Amino acid sequence: MAAALDSVSEEAPLVGRRAVLEALRAGRPLVRILLSRTARVRGPLGEILREARARHVPVQPVDPRRLDALSQGIPHQGVVALGAVQPLVELQDLLRRAREKEEDPVLVALDGVEDPRNLGAIIRTAEAAGAHGVIVPRRRAVGLTPAVARAAAGATAYLPVAGVGSLADALLRLRDEGLQVVGADPGAEEPYDSGALVPPIVLVLGGEGRGLHRLVRDRCDRLVRIPLHGRVQSLNVSVAAALLLYEVARHRARRA
Amino acid sequence: MAAALDSVSEEAPLVGRRAVLEALRAGRPLVRILLSRTARVRGPLGEILREARARHVPVQPVDPRRLDALSQGIPHQGVVALGAVQPLVELQDLLRRAREKEEDPVLVALDGVEDPRNLGAIIRTAEAAGAHGVIVPRRRAVGLTPAVARAAAGATAYLPVAGVGSLADALLRLRDEGLQVVGADPGAEEPYDSGALVPPIVLVLGGEGRGLHRLVRDRCDRLVRIPLHGRVQSLNVSVAAALLLYEVARHRARRA
Repeated sequence: MAAALDSVSEEAPLVGRRAVLEALRAGRPLVRILLSRTARVRGPLGEILREARARHVPVQPVDPRRLDALSQGIPHQGVVALGAVQPLVELQDLLRRAREKEEDPVLVALDGVEDPRNLGAIIRTAEAAGAHGVIVPRRRAVGLTPAVARAAAGATAYLPVAGVGSLADALLRLRDEGLQVVGADPGAEEPYDSGALVPPIVLVLGGEGRGLHRLVRDRCDRLVRIPLHGRVQSLNVSVAAALLLYEVARHRARRA
Repeated sequence: MAAALDSVSEEAPLVGRRAVLEALRAGRPLVRILLSRTARVRGPLGEILREARARHVPVQPVDPRRLDALSQGIPHQGVVALGAVQPLVELQDLLRRAREKEEDPVLVALDGVEDPRNLGAIIRTAEAAGAHGVIVPRRRAVGLTPAVARAAAGATAYLPVAGVGSLADALLRLRDEGLQVVGADPGAEEPYDSGALVPPIVLVLGGEGRGLHRLVRDRCDRLVRIPLHGRVQSLNVSVAAALLLYEVARHRARRA
């Protein structure tokens, strides 16, 4: 694993008004701009806000101590930008990848997974399980930040992640392409290992603590649950994704 | 999940010389003391070191910025102690728990898992999969800190974690008790889903990026691998644990 970690292309946070403004003007892929809650927005900070809006980069007000921690001693002047490690691709790129390998597509769609470690862990497991890509909504989800790449242990370099405007629309399109749309839902009757998780398939998982949005759930052909034998009410989303992905891998192995 | 998170008994880090010294003298369960690399050890800090040694609490020199981040504005004076949320239990307590439920024991032994989020995630999944406990070496592993409890989403309250002096000795004892000792090893020939993961069983997983120690591996009756279909070289240890635990749960469900 050490080797994989070393191969991750890390990008440090961009710290300070000048660095952030230049990155915006150069059109560098930025995931998010963090702005101190206590900063007065005028002059250069006002210009950063205008540029960010023009380029659709989200701006998040944060406690200045968070900026202190991120900038590690460099004066942040109230602003830090988080750069993307890699750009998101298009949905069709994932399907093309499966076609090129002459395999039935196996995809994972994430309905609002907001924790970078969970997103990274899911990318890593999906790659290991032989899936062809991960799908995230462009607006709500975390981007491919250094924290995601680190948790993915290098897998962001091997497995494409597609950004879509509407996850519900993307699922409709995948169904049209012949994929079975299977959602993980703790309230479903069918257990995940009943033998139905067969490619071509897209596995749909909801964000931590919230589950699937109604519209997304309605687009699923099938809802399955992972049995909980104890008292905890849910599994970590990256654990749930792993169990479903390896259940699909098991069937692929049998048919091969 | 929100409800489960709220129910975790969180314990804030103990910040500053007086707080740490008093906690030591009162015999509170402390996981670790973090001492600034740049602090001069004399006076109260010297006394903290002496008390810590007498009470077998590890002292770790850290960058002062880590203390800044942990103490959130409270003056730390070069020292922060991390309190345990819950004490570790004894190995026999895990076996008793299985007996009381009239079930064949299912245990997870962790050979040096050092990331609190991974330990927490494994406790959470083990509880959900119906296991009876987790085993960690007392010295090398992380303790049951607030970060572990948070990642476990409350499961530390339901699933006991045993601390052992020697993991290799513990496995020997469990084998004497009739448990099958199964280690996860990427180099093993046997896939994890060949049907052999049947209780009574203890699943043994190595630390991130290192795998099983030689002595621990030698104590395993069986080594199994989780197939990797992509280019990443390993799975996250909490994902590997989940796949093995649910493979065991699958067999329990069939026999029930």
